Amino acid sequence: MRVGMLTGGGDCPGLNAVIRAVVRKGVTAYGHDFIGFRDGWRGPLENDTMALGIEQVRGILPRGGTILGSSRTNPFAIDNGVEQIKDNLAANGCDALIAIGGEDTLGVATRLADLGVDVVGVPKTIDNDLSGTDFTFGFDTAVNIATEAIDRLHTTAESHHRVLVVEVMGRHAGWIALHSGMAGGANIILIPERPFDIEQVCAQVESRFATHYAPIIVVSEGAVPVEGGDMSLASGEKDAFGHVRLGGIGDRLAAEIERRTGKEARAVVLGHVQRGGTPTAFDRWLATRFGLHAITAVHEGDFGTMMALRGTEIVRVPLSEGTDQLKTVRADLYEEAEVFFG
Amino acid sequence: MRVGMLTGGGDCPGLNAVIRAVVRKGVTAYGHDFIGFRDGWRGPLENDTMALGIEQVRGILPRGGTILGSSRTNPFAIDNGVEQIKDNLAANGCDALIAIGGEDTLGVATRLADLGVDVVGVPKTIDNDLSGTDFTFGFDTAVNIATEAIDRLHTTAESHHRVLVVEVMGRHAGWIALHSGMAGGANIILIPERPFDIEQVCAQVESRFATHYAPIIVVSEGAVPVEGGDMSLASGEKDAFGHVRLGGIGDRLAAEIERRTGKEARAVVLGHVQRGGTPTAFDRWLATRFGLHAITAVHEGDFGTMMALRGTEIVRVPLSEGTDQLKTVRADLYEEAEVFFG
Amino acid sequence: MRVGMLTGGGDCPGLNAVIRAVVRKGVTAYGHDFIGFRDGWRGPLENDTMALGIEQVRGILPRGGTILGSSRTNPFAIDNGVEQIKDNLAANGCDALIAIGGEDTLGVATRLADLGVDVVGVPKTIDNDLSGTDFTFGFDTAVNIATEAIDRLHTTAESHHRVLVVEVMGRHAGWIALHSGMAGGANIILIPERPFDIEQVCAQVESRFATHYAPIIVVSEGAVPVEGGDMSLASGEKDAFGHVRLGGIGDRLAAEIERRTGKEARAVVLGHVQRGGTPTAFDRWLATRFGLHAITAVHEGDFGTMMALRGTEIVRVPLSEGTDQLKTVRADLYEEAEVFFG
Amino acid sequence: MRVGMLTGGGDCPGLNAVIRAVVRKGVTAYGHDFIGFRDGWRGPLENDTMALGIEQVRGILPRGGTILGSSRTNPFAIDNGVEQIKDNLAANGCDALIAIGGEDTLGVATRLADLGVDVVGVPKTIDNDLSGTDFTFGFDTAVNIATEAIDRLHTTAESHHRVLVVEVMGRHAGWIALHSGMAGGANIILIPERPFDIEQVCAQVESRFATHYAPIIVVSEGAVPVEGGDMSLASGEKDAFGHVRLGGIGDRLAAEIERRTGKEARAVVLGHVQRGGTPTAFDRWLATRFGLHAITAVHEGDFGTMMALRGTEIVRVPLSEGTDQLKTVRADLYEEAEVFFG
Repeated sequence: MRVGMLTGGGDCPGLNAVIRAVVRKGVTAYGHDFIGFRDGWRGPLENDTMALGIEQVRGILPRGGTILGSSRTNPFAIDNGVEQIKDNLAANGCDALIAIGGEDTLGVATRLADLGVDVVGVPKTIDNDLSGTDFTFGFDTAVNIATEAIDRLHTTAESHHRVLVVEVMGRHAGWIALHSGMAGGANIILIPERPFDIEQVCAQVESRFATHYAPIIVVSEGAVPVEGGDMSLASGEKDAFGHVRLGGIGDRLAAEIERRTGKEARAVVLGHVQRGGTPTAFDRWLATRFGLHAITAVHEGDFGTMMALRGTEIVRVPLSEGTDQLKTVRADLYEEAEVFFG
Repeated sequence: MRVGMLTGGGDCPGLNAVIRAVVRKGVTAYGHDFIGFRDGWRGPLENDTMALGIEQVRGILPRGGTILGSSRTNPFAIDNGVEQIKDNLAANGCDALIAIGGEDTLGVATRLADLGVDVVGVPKTIDNDLSGTDFTFGFDTAVNIATEAIDRLHTTAESHHRVLVVEVMGRHAGWIALHSGMAGGANIILIPERPFDIEQVCAQVESRFATHYAPIIVVSEGAVPVEGGDMSLASGEKDAFGHVRLGGIGDRLAAEIERRTGKEARAVVLGHVQRGGTPTAFDRWLATRFGLHAITAVHEGDFGTMMALRGTEIVRVPLSEGTDQLKTVRADLYEEAEVFFG
Repeated sequence: MRVGMLTGGGDCPGLNAVIRAVVRKGVTAYGHDFIGFRDGWRGPLENDTMALGIEQVRGILPRGGTILGSSRTNPFAIDNGVEQIKDNLAANGCDALIAIGGEDTLGVATRLADLGVDVVGVPKTIDNDLSGTDFTFGFDTAVNIATEAIDRLHTTAESHHRVLVVEVMGRHAGWIALHSGMAGGANIILIPERPFDIEQVCAQVESRFATHYAPIIVVSEGAVPVEGGDMSLASGEKDAFGHVRLGGIGDRLAAEIERRTGKEARAVVLGHVQRGGTPTAFDRWLATRFGLHAITAVHEGDFGTMMALRGTEIVRVPLSEGTDQLKTVRADLYEEAEVFFG
Repeated sequence: MRVGMLTGGGDCPGLNAVIRAVVRKGVTAYGHDFIGFRDGWRGPLENDTMALGIEQVRGILPRGGTILGSSRTNPFAIDNGVEQIKDNLAANGCDALIAIGGEDTLGVATRLADLGVDVVGVPKTIDNDLSGTDFTFGFDTAVNIATEAIDRLHTTAESHHRVLVVEVMGRHAGWIALHSGMAGGANIILIPERPFDIEQVCAQVESRFATHYAPIIVVSEGAVPVEGGDMSLASGEKDAFGHVRLGGIGDRLAAEIERRTGKEARAVVLGHVQRGGTPTAFDRWLATRFGLHAITAVHEGDFGTMMALRGTEIVRVPLSEGTDQLKTVRADLYEEAEVFFG
């Protein structure tokens, strides 16, 4: 049996661990052989392939990124994209495909499965916002990197009596902010699920200064002020390439707090360091297990499924389950963190 | 309401995070006040107490160890021990007690609960071998420390064509070996649940040398050879204090492999570095949540319970559930790791 | 003998190690006693003091920040500032003062020494740009943090074929960029000492893509384009508080490279994480030795001096030597790094 | 010009950084080409070579170990060893040789240079005990790993009132113990240069318990008791391979302290984790610079020299200077650390 594999979307620590586990178990336990498609859906679309065997996956377990490359190419946005993919899978003799990716990549996989492609999915998102699974790999690494940064910033906040705003990843869901904020002992955590009131934030900042040290605020990149709040915070100019680049929420929030409270405030935008580099042990373990179970699903012909973590078990769920609905932070979890605010 | 708190058994990253969460939520949400008992059950036994309020728990979240101190004192092994504990709880006006500890500490708590003490338990073990909960805090930290060590040893194994044996914690269960071995890309993992055959281990060592680099072997401190195997490995002299000190399984295994295969073999015994120092983000998050839920259980009068993680939920289970039976590594999980052996 | 101590300027890992070493040796070897002045020169100016003995310095060696607090207060900018300092030193019975700080703090110390205050200086700057000493503490920590970030970004650059720009500290000197860029395997390093030609940078970016992976560019916050270059890069709006906040050189450079080459480019601005948190072993060792030698200089009455590292020796140099002239990156050291460009 | 390169002795973080720098500068600046000899002097002895060009050194900067492999082969212990090396160098068209190694490897290089081989040396030792240079690469990495371990052990010592003995590398010189002990806040540091009095050590242990927390003792593997002291400590059985394996000084010291003081004492033997894995920024910077300067020395025909760090300069010294005499810890440096004992 020949199995194709690709990785799509933003890079994420653990991708290589999945690839290695799929190949190691596929070759040794099932006698499969593999072909790698480069740069997500661009690979099968343009028939850009690479050799993928025991030799290629040696030593990649601890490495960040993905040896297959990645892109955000969407074959459904391209004329005859689906046909080209089917043709190229056939031309390469692929009996099945393993797609490792987030909402977009797995969304394409879901639609391809409906169109008869034998595909198995492995969920991947730094942001941990895919439904159907307790956690996704990469998330634990991102949370640890953010937590270490917060640990470091505490001493600066204390020594200088400054407000420090830490902007972490999370466009639509505040999981990284919630976990790193709780782990780092943040005094305020702002997430997309809960539009914030800038006046309340400033009141908490001032109350914190009154009794203790300077506050640390952790904010998701997708956090927004409440409607009718100071809208200068909500707007975000885009540059010529359509990216909101300068003045993300972290910078804007620090500026606004400094303006309103008169306290020095500084923003630190962690950015891409959260998604690169070697994965934590948890992410290597989870990614490895996703890979092992994905190739078994392929071997058993259980297509249209996605691997998911439930407690300590890896289970299979329908591909659509992971992508139908975003997994956002529940109210009760946010309220746990609020105990430590102020 | 006045609540006593103590920590027993081996130290474990996250203990301080539990203590802080209990106190912060107890004081701010419920208006409780707290009293700390020093050094596990020795504290209430000898009425050795310390002040425990918002001020005492400030800044302790990222710190390893326990501000309450710890010991292995067992009040049931002492004449009138239980009476002294009851008397001292009463003398200090304690309405309830939170006991944070492992099998021994929670075993005492279970018996005290049966004798009418209002106690709530928080499970703690580096080894992750308590039943009833998916994970215990401290385990993720230990696994990451072991994984980083294995990462470092790979380069030595490769550069010197040496066998490296890494001995990790785990007297009765191989969780740390299994997780760090999988995360670190170990070539052989030996755990207490599976007595090993030294001849098979040596065969795997030689086969590894034949095709690739030098092997890394991860071994739990409690791993043992199969019956009838080379018993020089099984014996372990105890010193005057009853501790098996020199020549743990790691050292013995390295010596035996070197003797049998003629390949240089070196052991690294990670020891106490696995249980000290700052906790990972996961452990801080889990420990904090255990603390938050424990004080709510106290507030709601739900005594005789222990906090447990199930998926991403914190639930309450009967205290006895955690301690009745050891949680050992299931066969299917070990077989996942075996894919990467050799 | 009673000795005052203060820390001024930006915080820097190792400050607490200096304070601890001064107090430990002062008390145990010389029988001195100490008084801490809070927040740099604000302390002796406003007579804001704190107890400073063996008990206060216990456990602070591994902690970032400074238990004495810091500020940028300049007594020479305040009417009668110098008189107030002299009066408050006398009122507190201070026979001598140890000032730990950078260019500004030691500049004040130099002038006070000329005015008869018995002062000894300890050099402190993350940026490593003080003359007279091979290295300052805090620098090694900052370089390691930046290097780890660069390590992490390599995998993202490779997986996504993106340009990554890493902005590190260094307003006037490029030491952090040079060292972390060399250690991290950066493909281009831009420092204040060498105005850069944006066309040449873009040519190197394109040449890198032609042959290998995506490039990593490390840039000092104080790097500037050559005169007559694209001046949109040189300008930097200041906010209401006089800080250049949005659109630092990192963000601007990424935008400009993306505009000119059409390659996706992202900036990561490391910011304050470089100066907080626990110091590296090198910085703890250097800071501790500076402290030990500073109190000996006080004990021997060798005032007006500053501690300096020369090779592996701690020597005393005149206070003015450290602050008279900025230590910038020499041409030959930059040329060493250029071997790896492109 | 064709240049051979080899790495000998124990592995050491930074070896790959040297190799990369030599090749990158040799190829791009001087047009040299390279040939790698495998496993130290075994390579030129047995003519075991590997390709060594820009492609082979890509991505190796952050990796521990050595892509050239290593061994302790001594050609002077082999009949006609020197002739075979000369013949194989000639057969491969090698005009010069760069030898990267410690006392043994450079000792051979020195003798070969005397016999007319055009060789340049790069000093390498974890232990930092080579003369002629302020520091060797690998040392800073080892010290940081040891310091992190000591940081972690403090919390265990405090929570359990236990003595913790940390055995670090250093057979003949106590540099790692001295630096990591000072950086980690050890209460006692024992080094080979200063035979210790077990009674005095125990007195310090007891005095420490009397006033504060439990002590941390850092001991070099080569530390020995004073003559006439308890000789049970001095003996060390060797195994069949001549290695002192079980019951190193750390284990023995812990046992002896426990026996004499009645306090629980535990040993942690860091072992090979100190010499593997990714180098610190300092070590990458130093190793890279050694490589750059070594190939320039070759290019300029300045053979029989060794690279050395003096302050922040890389200089050339005669090969013999590094190996003639061991660089041990000076009395005044040890006395600096003693301020913090007890």
